[in-house]
Amino acid sequence: MNKRIFIIFFITLIFTALFNSNALASGGGGEGSPSHTDPFAVILIELALIVTVAMIGRFIAARYKQASVLGELVIGVIIGNIGYALGFPFFTLIMHLGDALPLFRHVWISGGDIQNAANTIFTPEQLANNGTAKELINVLTGSTGADLVALGYAIWLFSNLGVILLLFKVGLESNIKEMLRVGTRSLLVAVIGIVVPFVLGFVGTLIMIPTAKLSTLLFLGATLTATSVGITARVFKDLRKLQEPSAKIVLGAAVIDDILGLIILAVVSGIVASGMTSTGGAHSDLTSTLLLEVGRISLFSMLFLGAAIFFGDNLVRKCVPLMDYLDLRNSKLLFPLILCFLMAWFANLIELAAIVGAFAAGLILNENQFGSHPQKLTISELVEPLETIFAPIFFVLMGMQVNLAAFFNVETIILALVFTVAAIIGKIICGLPSGKDNDPLTVGLGMIPRGEVGLIFASVGKGLGVVNDSVFSAIVVMVMITTLITPPLLTWSLARWEKKQALP
Amino acid sequence: MNKRIFIIFFITLIFTALFNSNALASGGGGEGSPSHTDPFAVILIELALIVTVAMIGRFIAARYKQASVLGELVIGVIIGNIGYALGFPFFTLIMHLGDALPLFRHVWISGGDIQNAANTIFTPEQLANNGTAKELINVLTGSTGADLVALGYAIWLFSNLGVILLLFKVGLESNIKEMLRVGTRSLLVAVIGIVVPFVLGFVGTLIMIPTAKLSTLLFLGATLTATSVGITARVFKDLRKLQEPSAKIVLGAAVIDDILGLIILAVVSGIVASGMTSTGGAHSDLTSTLLLEVGRISLFSMLFLGAAIFFGDNLVRKCVPLMDYLDLRNSKLLFPLILCFLMAWFANLIELAAIVGAFAAGLILNENQFGSHPQKLTISELVEPLETIFAPIFFVLMGMQVNLAAFFNVETIILALVFTVAAIIGKIICGLPSGKDNDPLTVGLGMIPRGEVGLIFASVGKGLGVVNDSVFSAIVVMVMITTLITPPLLTWSLARWEKKQALP
Repeated sequence: MNKRIFIIFFITLIFTALFNSNALASGGGGEGSPSHTDPFAVILIELALIVTVAMIGRFIAARYKQASVLGELVIGVIIGNIGYALGFPFFTLIMHLGDALPLFRHVWISGGDIQNAANTIFTPEQLANNGTAKELINVLTGSTGADLVALGYAIWLFSNLGVILLLFKVGLESNIKEMLRVGTRSLLVAVIGIVVPFVLGFVGTLIMIPTAKLSTLLFLGATLTATSVGITARVFKDLRKLQEPSAKIVLGAAVIDDILGLIILAVVSGIVASGMTSTGGAHSDLTSTLLLEVGRISLFSMLFLGAAIFFGDNLVRKCVPLMDYLDLRNSKLLFPLILCFLMAWFANLIELAAIVGAFAAGLILNENQFGSHPQKLTISELVEPLETIFAPIFFVLMGMQVNLAAFFNVETIILALVFTVAAIIGKIICGLPSGKDNDPLTVGLGMIPRGEVGLIFASVGKGLGVVNDSVFSAIVVMVMITTLITPPLLTWSLARWEKKQALP
Repeated sequence: MNKRIFIIFFITLIFTALFNSNALASGGGGEGSPSHTDPFAVILIELALIVTVAMIGRFIAARYKQASVLGELVIGVIIGNIGYALGFPFFTLIMHLGDALPLFRHVWISGGDIQNAANTIFTPEQLANNGTAKELINVLTGSTGADLVALGYAIWLFSNLGVILLLFKVGLESNIKEMLRVGTRSLLVAVIGIVVPFVLGFVGTLIMIPTAKLSTLLFLGATLTATSVGITARVFKDLRKLQEPSAKIVLGAAVIDDILGLIILAVVSGIVASGMTSTGGAHSDLTSTLLLEVGRISLFSMLFLGAAIFFGDNLVRKCVPLMDYLDLRNSKLLFPLILCFLMAWFANLIELAAIVGAFAAGLILNENQFGSHPQKLTISELVEPLETIFAPIFFVLMGMQVNLAAFFNVETIILALVFTVAAIIGKIICGLPSGKDNDPLTVGLGMIPRGEVGLIFASVGKGLGVVNDSVFSAIVVMVMITTLITPPLLTWSLARWEKKQALP
């Protein structure tokens, strides 16, 4: 047993070194050297490495009877933190990828150097000698900076494509009728899953930080309401439980949660922003602005999902013959993918998460729409290879961004534990209205992961100045914990429910 | 007929506008806005657009009984040039993507602004008010510059992945035994296909520009020797002729050509570089350096291809059980892809083209190595969806970089025509030793496209100062013409040979 762990650790170490040496090797190519040297080659080897690492992660997870996604996350955490601790530039970049992307943008827009751009983006705290931003800047201004930027962005792209394809595939394996059947329950689950964590977060923070301002409390409450559906969808998929009614309730609730979360974020940031600028008295203005915003989001979201539900099938049936006429050989793969990309883009345009659009695209597509197509593989089988290679990149990368150093600060950890407990209890309670035929615990656990949505909320709060660095770190730790505990809890709870059902 | 062309033109115009508006729309999102706005969404819509445009291109090609790849190239040329003529920023970036990538790199390395970086990369001619570099800089320093950089790089990535997957799939559909059977003929074709165009290019240029220096003549000759296998491989694949012996001869010759081309480039640039620095007398030094370089390239290339041919199958058979043990469900897709990426990277490391490595990886893989794998689809079927979506991006993008404005300069066109004639005749002659069972014309035509390899040669020459802007433009036009005429010529010649064979 110990020997096996040692072997895994050793392999992991080798891979960590490989990753880094290749990220660095690209610097050797140089520009204008008289050869074929192709900047794409280094991206290929990193792809090969990440795919292999993900395979090892899945293997370890299978050994311990866990969902594959947990293996990918955990091996990402291990490799990411070893590389980061050893000061490898590639790993430092990945660890701070969330900060790096706005930095890239700002460097380009300002046309200035990285340091100047960093000064406008980061706080002095982060820019201090041992701050996170300082590390990032050191890496990016190093001799391999340009290659690291290109590499980091490429991996970010592939991981984003992966999560879009994952939710699309999950959508393909569900259908609208089944989703509508559990619609009311999903709505109830979503609403309770927002109210309870909000209240718990608000009260918990008030107890922990009695001096906290109302705006801070509102933001922390809002941060705890988010649900990130990627992890849960992967667990259900890994365990082949996407056809379970509880899976459908969770997926439906997550979509509704995305809409409600957007409304809450608009309301809370509206209140906070106006509370900072107005000197009182302009309350009616604020209320009407907020109502307008809430109305706009509700209207757009309902129009989008309503159109998908009611006209989606018909529209697809109209488009299929046209696409078959254009390119019969490839239409059964390409039309679904085009629809997925378009709907993901459109969802994002009305400020929903892109994955909600991809999921909706998967929902409205089904085999019958393609009739007797010469392509005998199903849409799901055709999309499978794409999803198989890209989706794991998303989860390995997510693991690599879990900074274990955040767990070494006692103050952060205590605050994080309060948030985490509020986050978990709040979402477990929301499983209650899922009906007696379904397992309320599974539904509740499925709603737990906060993922990137919680981080978006927290960073908006940081931007508005109501979330300080210590609270932000605690939120990050909460997001990490909720993300990492969901796969094993869900695996356990699904097995438990199955056993219970098997009893007479 | 005219009506149909009008409709196609109209659709193309709409797509051109769509491309652009979306590239611009991404600028609206902005950073830190309190919403889900995801910089990945704009990449999704551009992906959807390119995939749709490629489908339309294939449809038009099918209508005129041409290879799909020609349709993708031509619709790329049309859309690219309309958008460019209308001054749409996205199209200006794509048109100058070859210049843009080194510029991105230099901006980041220097930490300075775009203008400064451009001053060190481009010639004053290019930086003049109506120069190509000036346009590029205007676009990149515009308000949507940062988004365009991200978008252009993303599309470049997907197109590169596409051409790697294409050659990998072409390799999968061939095997080593068949390639070795035509080995001698491939070698003969490759050697003649290098010597004849070199001599023709050298002499032709001497006649056209009697004042040209020896170094310029050497470089122009070398530029004409290159073969870019992507176009030809796609045509054979489109027409389902990859199993024809002539297809195998061309593929083998193209791989050998890549190695020989590398040697020629090393020798020519060695001679030119030393000729510029040395004041004579150091000839023995030069000779030994060149011999060392030639030896190194030959040794590495032979070791790489030799190892692939003789140990590849055994190595794969040893790896498959390990990969099956790790992740049986996905190993039959993931292991081949990992091997492809690794070998493409490794080929690039020894300065061969990455696509040569991908092709070699495809060659050494076969179904037998996987025995009775639970995955019933073949490797080729599993890779198909990936190749189907990404490979066309490469060809549409290649078309979008064909600047029709280059055809409006009389002097350039005359020079270009001389290069083109030398390029075509040189490669048609090289088909002669392909044996009486094969069609010499098909083999010769298959060797015609110069693609990106010719451009790499030309830009090295430009970097060394022996190729001026006018000659460079003529080379670019030659590359465009050889790329665009190959698909229809090859389609015609394959049909002609088939008819001839059918005769008693």
